[in-house]
Amino acid sequence: MDAADPLAHLRAQFALPEAVIYMDGNSLGPLPKAVRRRLIHAIDVEWGENLIRAWNTDDWFGLPQSVGAKLARLIGAEAHEVIATDGTSINLFKLTAAALRMQPHRKVIVTQEGNFPTDIYVTEGLVDLLGQGHEIRLVENEEILEALDDTVAVLALTQVDYRNGERLDIAAITESAHDNGILTIWDLCHSAGAFEVDLNGARADFAVGCGYKYLNGGPGAPAYLYVAERHQAAARQPLSGWWGHEAPFAFENRYRAAPGVAHHLCGTQPVLSMIALHEALDVFADVDFGLMREKSVGMCEAFIHLVERDCAGYGFELASPRAPEHRGSQVSFRHPDGFPIMQALIARGVIGDFRAPDVLRFGLAPIYNSYQDVWRAADVLLGIMRSGEWKDPTFAVRGRVT
Amino acid sequence: MDAADPLAHLRAQFALPEAVIYMDGNSLGPLPKAVRRRLIHAIDVEWGENLIRAWNTDDWFGLPQSVGAKLARLIGAEAHEVIATDGTSINLFKLTAAALRMQPHRKVIVTQEGNFPTDIYVTEGLVDLLGQGHEIRLVENEEILEALDDTVAVLALTQVDYRNGERLDIAAITESAHDNGILTIWDLCHSAGAFEVDLNGARADFAVGCGYKYLNGGPGAPAYLYVAERHQAAARQPLSGWWGHEAPFAFENRYRAAPGVAHHLCGTQPVLSMIALHEALDVFADVDFGLMREKSVGMCEAFIHLVERDCAGYGFELASPRAPEHRGSQVSFRHPDGFPIMQALIARGVIGDFRAPDVLRFGLAPIYNSYQDVWRAADVLLGIMRSGEWKDPTFAVRGRVT
Repeated sequence: MDAADPLAHLRAQFALPEAVIYMDGNSLGPLPKAVRRRLIHAIDVEWGENLIRAWNTDDWFGLPQSVGAKLARLIGAEAHEVIATDGTSINLFKLTAAALRMQPHRKVIVTQEGNFPTDIYVTEGLVDLLGQGHEIRLVENEEILEALDDTVAVLALTQVDYRNGERLDIAAITESAHDNGILTIWDLCHSAGAFEVDLNGARADFAVGCGYKYLNGGPGAPAYLYVAERHQAAARQPLSGWWGHEAPFAFENRYRAAPGVAHHLCGTQPVLSMIALHEALDVFADVDFGLMREKSVGMCEAFIHLVERDCAGYGFELASPRAPEHRGSQVSFRHPDGFPIMQALIARGVIGDFRAPDVLRFGLAPIYNSYQDVWRAADVLLGIMRSGEWKDPTFAVRGRVT
Repeated sequence: MDAADPLAHLRAQFALPEAVIYMDGNSLGPLPKAVRRRLIHAIDVEWGENLIRAWNTDDWFGLPQSVGAKLARLIGAEAHEVIATDGTSINLFKLTAAALRMQPHRKVIVTQEGNFPTDIYVTEGLVDLLGQGHEIRLVENEEILEALDDTVAVLALTQVDYRNGERLDIAAITESAHDNGILTIWDLCHSAGAFEVDLNGARADFAVGCGYKYLNGGPGAPAYLYVAERHQAAARQPLSGWWGHEAPFAFENRYRAAPGVAHHLCGTQPVLSMIALHEALDVFADVDFGLMREKSVGMCEAFIHLVERDCAGYGFELASPRAPEHRGSQVSFRHPDGFPIMQALIARGVIGDFRAPDVLRFGLAPIYNSYQDVWRAADVLLGIMRSGEWKDPTFAVRGRVT
């Protein structure tokens, strides 16, 4: 299957350690070799030699836009609708504030009970700050559509569930939201880079996402945000720093919003981290998204099949949706001893991760994972269950893994 | 003078290009050689090999606190009062929101007419979002004390003026603010790393600062914030992301603020940029702050003396305060043709910068600048004025320089 994989050659672009089967790119993508080269150049030449001049000579100023333009293709947006900046939580704060302001007579924000927690937390922080009686309504994924009515200002959803990989239909849900006069904010943290997203095809309003998972931009890489062109004039966010000013270098002492998505910038960006993301995205430059999805589904199906067949009787339960069309690019299993089992896998070089209370997550990235990874991971899992080595007390010690 | 300089050996820790006299460290500090080594290790080993495990094995999680602890010594704070995170503008938004919430019956925010613009812009954004009738009162530096009364909630000041280097007395102003029941927020962007700051000695309340100027943390390095221990329980900021949660990895779906300054974290930090700052701060580990200030004053005095003596008649006017105790570590001159003159200096390798409408800025960093730098820069300036080479039309083309 690897021999027939039209994307197999891309794996060579990554510095993956020999002894590791990496199935945690949904948490931190691996190092693209070109990023290493580019960062050393940025350190030695751009910062080291060009110094302050690099803002112009190496276009550090343009990085939020140039990274945004590369991202646009992956999420079905136009280049001028996407900008790379800050973190996902901060970008959600900006866009939720902007969207609520566009819906002054509606006081409800609907989001998922099982959303990634920070998405809920920043909404809480905003609602509390506003003090205007907004209500955050948490619903299960299957209750989303019935929660939409004309009291709802904003529907804020993460497309792919971080625990079980369940994937929502952006187009269908956005259409229902719009039928009810609701603005949507999509969190694409577990989507972009794993499969094609088509924001404009879905008439999406706003979106955010991070750069360090399937996009391989490096630890804590800058995040991005999307504002549909039709909303750019009306969407006003409160983190109104100088990078979002119409003329930052005029040093005026009153804020004037820059036109377009640039208004959503706040301050100076972490250039080294931004350069890493800029370079990392080139891996996707010529990728056929149809082939990418086909391989993603193929690997996930194979992994489910192998674990359910070989590890039958060891207590694993598929946590991810069984139908590929309802999954992102990850497979999760529940097991009451999931934590020590995952630690035992990691000790054997199969790196997935664990989410409380009982979820083992395996991210499968079509860009660099292989069918052999899938087969070997399932084999190692079987070995661990047969030998019982996961019962070693050292595997029960909890650390923190993002 | 260089031979007698007890800090002269520190210059060797920086990768300063041979052909450059760098007097723009108040905008972007140069590359510490150790940062290069540490970043390559972080890329190859931490990200490349350790992958997701590096959050624990290389303590990426602890970076905001460990960087904060190194910064604490430079600004007269305790380690648990400082945290490195996000950007200066975002941190100002957090702390201003927190301070206003602690002063619910006061509606005025006093800041400087000549403050760095983003400080004003983010305050505007917050006031606008709150919609509670807060007023931003802009005053000149000499009007600050008379602007303090019991209607003022927050006094937000940048200690050192970014254009002329004028330096305010944190202790005296904070005392007057406290006499009026006002909370202070100090912006230390042009202070920390240039001279010793003593926040706790001044009984300061809150502070922010950036990592990429005198701290040499790299382009767009993460910023930091300080919350005096006595305010940590009451200070609540609205960018309530998961990194500021009491138990981020419990993945609860309601926010509970972490105790202490950690509450002021929002989301995942740009690790590569944070590591650069972490390493860069070690340059200051053993520096005697008295010697640092003595050298800073010595270089600034020498530069003023040389320019005023040698370039007399060429139209320069000292823009910085003449008394050293009222200056930070920069010298500024006004000249109606300041822009092309600065471009001509840069073309000759003397890198300062220009601020509209007519200010030439020269940052003098006691950590790596030398008296010879000062002499040579003054000499090159004289040469440019004598020859008139700054009138070359190419020098009139405006770029953007931060």
